[in-house]
Amino acid sequence: MSLEIEQDKTWFTEACDDCGSAFSLKIEEKLHEEVSDFQKIEIYKTTHYGNLMVIDGFTMLSDRDNFLYHEMMTHPALYSHSNPENVLVIGGGDCGTLREVLKHTEVKKVHQVEIDERVTRLSEQYFPDLCSANSDPRAELFFADGLQWVKDARPGEYDLIIVDSTDPVGPAEGLFNEAFYKSCQRILGDSGILVQQSESPIAHIKLIKAMHAAMAAAGFNYTHTLDFPQPLYPSGWWSATMASNTKFGEGRREDIKNQDFETLYYCETKHRAAMAPLAYLVKQLSK
Amino acid sequence: MSLEIEQDKTWFTEACDDCGSAFSLKIEEKLHEEVSDFQKIEIYKTTHYGNLMVIDGFTMLSDRDNFLYHEMMTHPALYSHSNPENVLVIGGGDCGTLREVLKHTEVKKVHQVEIDERVTRLSEQYFPDLCSANSDPRAELFFADGLQWVKDARPGEYDLIIVDSTDPVGPAEGLFNEAFYKSCQRILGDSGILVQQSESPIAHIKLIKAMHAAMAAAGFNYTHTLDFPQPLYPSGWWSATMASNTKFGEGRREDIKNQDFETLYYCETKHRAAMAPLAYLVKQLSK
Repeated sequence: MSLEIEQDKTWFTEACDDCGSAFSLKIEEKLHEEVSDFQKIEIYKTTHYGNLMVIDGFTMLSDRDNFLYHEMMTHPALYSHSNPENVLVIGGGDCGTLREVLKHTEVKKVHQVEIDERVTRLSEQYFPDLCSANSDPRAELFFADGLQWVKDARPGEYDLIIVDSTDPVGPAEGLFNEAFYKSCQRILGDSGILVQQSESPIAHIKLIKAMHAAMAAAGFNYTHTLDFPQPLYPSGWWSATMASNTKFGEGRREDIKNQDFETLYYCETKHRAAMAPLAYLVKQLSK
Repeated sequence: MSLEIEQDKTWFTEACDDCGSAFSLKIEEKLHEEVSDFQKIEIYKTTHYGNLMVIDGFTMLSDRDNFLYHEMMTHPALYSHSNPENVLVIGGGDCGTLREVLKHTEVKKVHQVEIDERVTRLSEQYFPDLCSANSDPRAELFFADGLQWVKDARPGEYDLIIVDSTDPVGPAEGLFNEAFYKSCQRILGDSGILVQQSESPIAHIKLIKAMHAAMAAAGFNYTHTLDFPQPLYPSGWWSATMASNTKFGEGRREDIKNQDFETLYYCETKHRAAMAPLAYLVKQLSK
């Protein structure tokens, strides 16, 4: 059964040795390849998933399935905050997260801090839908180091920080530790929320556990991991982990119920399911 | 990045050409291989997912992730029925579905009709946990053709039919059409529910659409597709489709809330999220 993969060079494969699995997408053609100042970026046209962005050999996003990730990285956290006016996105260069954040009319300002401008320029070219809100006057795009940005920002400057980074190797490594979380806490208001992509609940439980510990060590009183399907990433089951000084409740129930913008996966019931404790994770994290 | 897959023969790969993706698991050793009267069955020991069963080249289940599928194939449907006393499982030879069904004390009788006895015998050997409820006096295991079984059963004999089959090729092909659904309707009581595994919401939308149409053509008034993560199957995002003459409501709310058995993924909020309309699917199915 592995003949197709072995003999047919038109498959792109991301093998995750640490998790004992690999995922492949059938490719029509490679549209672009470059080595930026930070990483190698490739763009492929796939047979079934539309365009595909790959960074340093890791699948980042496809046209077809990115809605799952972008909706679940943003709306649960935004609706969990009582009044998220000022939002910081770290990473997120493809601008899909930014687009979802800007769907919330209560958001007054979004700073997006992506280290690699080339990711955004290529997204504008190959994923124009994701960049459709980039000219929103509430959005400001900075191409800078997110680690330095959180050190320099004012105390309480943000209500919500979304860390939409690559995996915790390479440029994003410093975004997964106590020192970074301490900086985040300093620049969040009292009811501020940090949310970060946290890999697979089945393949990367050690990382998720370490994140909870580091967030707690940094002084956050409450942490929570939410789960959602994500075909392109190892195991197809993904997560985001939230931290706050304020208990995560049911969020702004009326606003969630009366959501006035379109989403494909996120909705009231998915919100509640994502924010409830998941027995599987509770068990894994307590081991 | 595809070198591991290409050069290392210790990966098992299932390529899905129709969906433009492939999934691979790293293998420690092949534990068993045989050709039964119906299909080729292989058992592998994987590095990270425990034991793995493969039928005709398709991954069936692993120790590590089968809880997602088995819980979501059973509990939403069981709790959607007001009093599911008599249950028919078609397929389900690994007995994981049976085990979940038997967790419900209101269930008085389960007939499991698996065409290939070898699947069950191998599951007893390599997945003993899944077979731990096989000796429950409420369970009767038959090794017979499910298609014929539903033709022969008495009208209204069952409250719930769970079709836990392989993909709609090979022995399971006849389980995905109007004639089969008509037989199911005949042997279900008025408030009876049929639930069937229905492949990936992102990779097999045509099949899901055809199932809804065939279920409606067979006379079922209501159909609903629920979604859940499932690492081993193409895209890692999977579904089950339900059909009934009675509208799916909120299910037995009090019983769901007071669930008196352990599950790892299924819970009250996942139930509600699974049973709510999913905008993505509504949109895809209306195209």
